[in-house]
Amino acid sequence: MPHLFHTIGHVRSPYTDKFGIPRQSGLVPDARVCIELLPQFNADCVRGLGDFGYIWLQFVFHATADEGWSPLVRPPRLGGKIKKGVFATRSPHRPNPLGLSLLRLERIETLPRVVLYCSGADLLDGTPVLDIKPYIPFVEARPDAAAGFAHAPPPQLTVVWDADIAPDNPTLIRLIEQSIAQDPRPAFHNHPERVYFMTLQGCAIEFRITGQVAHIIAFTHVDY
Amino acid sequence: MPHLFHTIGHVRSPYTDKFGIPRQSGLVPDARVCIELLPQFNADCVRGLGDFGYIWLQFVFHATADEGWSPLVRPPRLGGKIKKGVFATRSPHRPNPLGLSLLRLERIETLPRVVLYCSGADLLDGTPVLDIKPYIPFVEARPDAAAGFAHAPPPQLTVVWDADIAPDNPTLIRLIEQSIAQDPRPAFHNHPERVYFMTLQGCAIEFRITGQVAHIIAFTHVDY
Repeated sequence: MPHLFHTIGHVRSPYTDKFGIPRQSGLVPDARVCIELLPQFNADCVRGLGDFGYIWLQFVFHATADEGWSPLVRPPRLGGKIKKGVFATRSPHRPNPLGLSLLRLERIETLPRVVLYCSGADLLDGTPVLDIKPYIPFVEARPDAAAGFAHAPPPQLTVVWDADIAPDNPTLIRLIEQSIAQDPRPAFHNHPERVYFMTLQGCAIEFRITGQVAHIIAFTHVDY
Repeated sequence: MPHLFHTIGHVRSPYTDKFGIPRQSGLVPDARVCIELLPQFNADCVRGLGDFGYIWLQFVFHATADEGWSPLVRPPRLGGKIKKGVFATRSPHRPNPLGLSLLRLERIETLPRVVLYCSGADLLDGTPVLDIKPYIPFVEARPDAAAGFAHAPPPQLTVVWDADIAPDNPTLIRLIEQSIAQDPRPAFHNHPERVYFMTLQGCAIEFRITGQVAHIIAFTHVDY
């Protein structure tokens, strides 16, 4: 039986391409996004939400929704060699392309329309939002829960800039370094000579990865 | 822009009426449900899920989906006197009737079809399920998160049975007592003489509430 849902707003994110988006929320604290609600969702709709530290976002994996899904998935965490059931992973390729992210709520603006400023995002720019809910720690914080192959944060790369190419913007540097430290390569890649390219907040970044070190070899601002 | 999703399975729950369903997951540990997946979602789809202690259920609030929503909601936790924005609550009356529950995963059967046995549910029998995801504690356990008006579990009622009416079934007794201890009354009710009626796992239960004590005054098995 089909169920019809409507977009209530959109995510504005520094991640304008799929490549490089963190694989879980919270991994890149400096990944700041705005959630812009449509005009019919006024300030009343978020009254009291600012008293919560985190929010749940239920959203549509719009960029991969047409790519279909498979019962078995190779999680990047397992090196791409082991298959898990789609419902045992957070893969975007699901029977229903429904996402769920926990975001830190930084502040709320309500004029001229409602905008939620959040951090720790793992969201593509333009993501359609279906619902926002407060995080309730006495219900949803289960630090001792068994967690299979996802029992700890993934190891991070060390990120090194080639001489004199880093931008003069500490916030942007943190966002770039934290994003690349997540190792955005597909799991089966291990080619030290290969140059990876990602765009982030209107910047183009090129890097190589050797062992546990990522070298940023080019950085340019891109005009849109 | 509309988004179309399809049911992947249904919840089989002891809660066959809306009245008496716990207001959050986890509050009634003995609320055991089955999630029966449709036949096209086979054992592969849940491979590895049994290594996780908890699962997220994204589902449709099907029984209230046609009742509409308001920007402001009176949470029962606040005595029904204070209004909060719909996105600052977990009310089922939302712009998109999308639910989110954290369930303890007890075991999985895969033959003749996939059934997940879970506890701590706050789900109506027949609920359509849209997605199942593993709970990842290093991302989603934030015990110190600010939580506004929902910072602690609600106070529970003491539950007392009238003489000789309790069933000869300790599991059923626990389910009934834990459910009524949540105080299922609408927030504005405080009438000690009023008799409340709830059905639970094929049983009809009548009770009154005086102060912080609920008295169960009648219990009958119901034939369906």
